[in-house]
Amino acid sequence: MPFLSGTPPFRPEHPVFAIVLGNTLLSTVPGVSGAGISPEKTVLTPVLDSELITHGAIRSRKWKPNTPTGCPTPAVITRAMMVLLGMEPLFINAGLTTRPVIPCLDVYGEPGRDPRDDDAVPRARDLYARGEQVGRFLSRFSDLLVLGECVPGGTTTALCVLRGLGIPASVSSSFVNNPVALKEAICARVQERIRAGAADGIRAGGPGDPLDIIRIGGDPMLAVAAGIVSSFKGDMVLAGGTQMLAVAAVVRGLGKKLPSLVTTVYVRDDPSAGFTTTAEMIGARVYYVDPDLAAIGHKGLARYCEGEVKEGIGAGGAMFLARIMGKSDREIRDTILATVSAY
Amino acid sequence: MPFLSGTPPFRPEHPVFAIVLGNTLLSTVPGVSGAGISPEKTVLTPVLDSELITHGAIRSRKWKPNTPTGCPTPAVITRAMMVLLGMEPLFINAGLTTRPVIPCLDVYGEPGRDPRDDDAVPRARDLYARGEQVGRFLSRFSDLLVLGECVPGGTTTALCVLRGLGIPASVSSSFVNNPVALKEAICARVQERIRAGAADGIRAGGPGDPLDIIRIGGDPMLAVAAGIVSSFKGDMVLAGGTQMLAVAAVVRGLGKKLPSLVTTVYVRDDPSAGFTTTAEMIGARVYYVDPDLAAIGHKGLARYCEGEVKEGIGAGGAMFLARIMGKSDREIRDTILATVSAY
Repeated sequence: MPFLSGTPPFRPEHPVFAIVLGNTLLSTVPGVSGAGISPEKTVLTPVLDSELITHGAIRSRKWKPNTPTGCPTPAVITRAMMVLLGMEPLFINAGLTTRPVIPCLDVYGEPGRDPRDDDAVPRARDLYARGEQVGRFLSRFSDLLVLGECVPGGTTTALCVLRGLGIPASVSSSFVNNPVALKEAICARVQERIRAGAADGIRAGGPGDPLDIIRIGGDPMLAVAAGIVSSFKGDMVLAGGTQMLAVAAVVRGLGKKLPSLVTTVYVRDDPSAGFTTTAEMIGARVYYVDPDLAAIGHKGLARYCEGEVKEGIGAGGAMFLARIMGKSDREIRDTILATVSAY
Repeated sequence: MPFLSGTPPFRPEHPVFAIVLGNTLLSTVPGVSGAGISPEKTVLTPVLDSELITHGAIRSRKWKPNTPTGCPTPAVITRAMMVLLGMEPLFINAGLTTRPVIPCLDVYGEPGRDPRDDDAVPRARDLYARGEQVGRFLSRFSDLLVLGECVPGGTTTALCVLRGLGIPASVSSSFVNNPVALKEAICARVQERIRAGAADGIRAGGPGDPLDIIRIGGDPMLAVAAGIVSSFKGDMVLAGGTQMLAVAAVVRGLGKKLPSLVTTVYVRDDPSAGFTTTAEMIGARVYYVDPDLAAIGHKGLARYCEGEVKEGIGAGGAMFLARIMGKSDREIRDTILATVSAY
């Protein structure tokens, strides 16, 4: 496959690369998320990744946001592309358990709660409105917004929201062996709560109000990203896997214009994720990036090709942006190798 | 006087209007600040003002950020200009006691402590670095940055920093009768601490390191604003009174390029503030805005001309920006009257 699966029509003069950071307490449930060296530490990954992307190193803690098996965070790829493009990414704090160590555009949300027991995002509607404000603000300065995300455990909340919207999706995982049974059990419980919520104001017998579904079973990133997409006036590309499919599904459910998506071929080729099928159901245009990490000369990155990590914190979108800004395959791969070797 | 005291050379294509919000616990000392209906409630003014500017109304609380005598907040003027220009302002959270209700670019600082007892901003150097990051980010999108501030009690920390830098300044106040004796007593105590700090690493016998002076006696806004000024690449205008003179003095002390300043004639004409004298000592170019609030047809605003409030939360800078973006005196004044009447 070529580096990029299609030729996007974008010729941006003022692109913005932004990443929505959030937490769901689901990531601390053992087995749900591989985005961190242990379940309890997964919640720190967005803060560590944003520090790494900004400074090229993690100074605030002594350990690195690797997987339990030592696979490097996809933030090294995002960092490499920002360096190559000379860009400053914008981090958007949708609701974190930990205080960031670098500046974020903060909408003052809270981390998502465990959706099995409680409303996950009680203020979903308010966070959506704040996302809309962010989108309006960015519209004044940018003609292309590439929006990534980092939410450990977020593929499970994405599954809950996609199913809640009536889309028979499956989801990707940063684990090689996707813990499908665990995710399905969580999702089944959340669907019960959504059906119970139907009696409580959500329209029964059909797709409910997307923001109510996020309230019951989502995470703060989904609400904020949907708000940004709804109000941003320029070209918009969601960078990520099944989590961004959930954002697109919410946006479609709200009757707004669908954004494009970009992700890596490693997400596309994950048989348990069913990414392309879900994207077709939603009707979103998807670009796939194939950086050929197996050939790049780094063992940890090569494991992305075997199905570990696959994508995250806008890595696919960052490579996509580098490409449409005129960088060659060679420049992109060389910069990734130099960055991951220093890390 | 004409509406604007000079003709600025700026012809911006992508202006950004930003306001740095911060707190110093000094504002809760009775008599220091008039920016709120009581000393304890002054700390809420930045959050309420930013809500008013964004939404045109305060929904999060039942009361308004007026002075003890009922004079309206200058945020109504800033709000009016944003409406007239169709702009979304950017709020920057440098360190607040209360959580904002609208999105802010947050550098994750803390409110300034009482500088009589303790280092006011222990992380001043770190906040300066985060301000630099914000300035670098905004440089990519904007060719003119008008930067205002809202820090209740901030004229007193500004006095401490200006004096600490060896500038024999006096400062303005939102009170008609500037509580000079109280401010001087606070300042004298802080100068002692700065001199003691000299033994502790600050260069003795001359102006100390400006960021150490902020650490000992300033507030978080001063550190963040100085960082932004130091790294922003386009044209830069600091909007405000003596607090922005302190930022300019810090920037000069750091050997960086001086920004322009803009404020209202009500600050210029406050005899206790000595604004023009201090500006000349620092060497900053200042534009003065004369909106002729006495003639606008609103009793509360007319009191600005008698020396109450005078300026705040970028009001002078917002009128300045409206003017250089081609709005007439008449449009500016009519919009202010309509906004304050609805408030």
